[in-house]
Amino acid sequence: MFDKVAIFGVGLIGGSLALALDRAGAAKRIVGIERSPGAAQRALQLGVVDEIARNEADAVRGADMVVLATPVAQTDRVLAAIAPHLTLRTIVTDTGSTKGNVIEVARERLGGKWPQFVPAHPIAGKEQAGVDAAEVELFDGRRCVLVPEVDTAGHAVEAVRDMWTACGALVSLMTAEQHDTVFAAVSHLPHLLSFALVAAIAREDDAAMKFAHAGGGFRDFTRIAASSPEMWRDIFIANKTAVLSELTAYEAELRALRQMIESNDAKAIEAECELSRNVRSQLMF
Amino acid sequence: MFDKVAIFGVGLIGGSLALALDRAGAAKRIVGIERSPGAAQRALQLGVVDEIARNEADAVRGADMVVLATPVAQTDRVLAAIAPHLTLRTIVTDTGSTKGNVIEVARERLGGKWPQFVPAHPIAGKEQAGVDAAEVELFDGRRCVLVPEVDTAGHAVEAVRDMWTACGALVSLMTAEQHDTVFAAVSHLPHLLSFALVAAIAREDDAAMKFAHAGGGFRDFTRIAASSPEMWRDIFIANKTAVLSELTAYEAELRALRQMIESNDAKAIEAECELSRNVRSQLMF
Repeated sequence: MFDKVAIFGVGLIGGSLALALDRAGAAKRIVGIERSPGAAQRALQLGVVDEIARNEADAVRGADMVVLATPVAQTDRVLAAIAPHLTLRTIVTDTGSTKGNVIEVARERLGGKWPQFVPAHPIAGKEQAGVDAAEVELFDGRRCVLVPEVDTAGHAVEAVRDMWTACGALVSLMTAEQHDTVFAAVSHLPHLLSFALVAAIAREDDAAMKFAHAGGGFRDFTRIAASSPEMWRDIFIANKTAVLSELTAYEAELRALRQMIESNDAKAIEAECELSRNVRSQLMF
Repeated sequence: MFDKVAIFGVGLIGGSLALALDRAGAAKRIVGIERSPGAAQRALQLGVVDEIARNEADAVRGADMVVLATPVAQTDRVLAAIAPHLTLRTIVTDTGSTKGNVIEVARERLGGKWPQFVPAHPIAGKEQAGVDAAEVELFDGRRCVLVPEVDTAGHAVEAVRDMWTACGALVSLMTAEQHDTVFAAVSHLPHLLSFALVAAIAREDDAAMKFAHAGGGFRDFTRIAASSPEMWRDIFIANKTAVLSELTAYEAELRALRQMIESNDAKAIEAECELSRNVRSQLMF
């Protein structure tokens, strides 16, 4: 399908993509590029990529598909570095968890080649990072959201859709605003809340005793608090508006619950928990 | 070990206790009592208990161990009902997730028999409730915290310790205040936060689209939001002081994080996430 796929950032997502492309026989050659020499070596050693490019120009030369799988804050730098080396047939896409800011940066950096860029987000994180955590089946049956703008080239969208479908993902389309609001609510805010709980307890005098008695509920609630600090730092800032807006709604809910508990309003608390349980029990993952 | 164990509330905890006592050969007869006739029938049908008592007096008659496994708000009613029927050799214990309020109620209701009451909390919840969710190995390797007061009878503490040890649990001791603070932080608050997130999103106009894109992080974060509304309503009210105090600390943490995000303070956000990840990664469950 592709002669050469260039993957920027061969970590969990980039590495898994390389493995899945290989499984599908969808790329004749997969070239990775890594800022960390150790990670680059490891990716070669694991056979995740065919080669590691020495620089951005080498990476994109001859590539018909370029995938950014770096933390979102690096999008600007990477796009600026590759823009001069892109031909009119190179398709570029990303894997970032936020889309509004990526689109803004890509429009500016890619100029006339902007229509060849397809903003994308495969929904397949896990708390482990790095190429050692990469899995060939990471995207199987998982959603991948494409966020084309009105002036994104149709053939580019089709190529990116085909790539993710070949990797096992279920592709759907959204606007950038929908995307950023949806994931602020169901992904970014929960991560923030989970990081916050562990950090808040860690600062208390009796933290050790508290953590020693944490059970299954705490384990699951805080699983995502073991996620990559760099990645999430970038996401919180990149999707600031939507994240803080969801946080505002959440804080209002907490104030309402506090008020119910303070006034021993058992009926109202139970109704709130009931609403939550009914909705949660019906969700399919 | 016991001639007759009476279990009030044959649900997840009471049912699992009955199964584990039976596995250990630790009770000649296990008698359940249920407010719901359906649950009583089901417990008999599943062979979880040997019989179902018709009333409180029958349940405790001849019992050397009485276990309350009802939602905590029922502690008062149940203790009041059984108090007149307890002999001086009957040991009473509970399984509630809060201890300060249980102790207060037990002192009042049990009067002179108060020293025979051992406040206890097996740390082995899951989101499913009811006798159908009961498991013989629910307590295996899990902690059970005993919270004796200075005037709790030593032999009663030993008997309850032996019972839980026979059921596979690792028994430890705490004061009621320690217990309620610890579990407010690592159990009650996370449940409140998880219920709150699902309820907050459920009220938004685009709730359906948001829930449709929820992934693994959301699934784990909200697993406990499918827990029993009645049980958690009771816990939030019973442990109000400690829960609201932990909530206050948590809200301060959220305000600090909001401030960092608003001011694009990448370094501070990353430090916060790093603290959280380091602590979380070292926890053993």
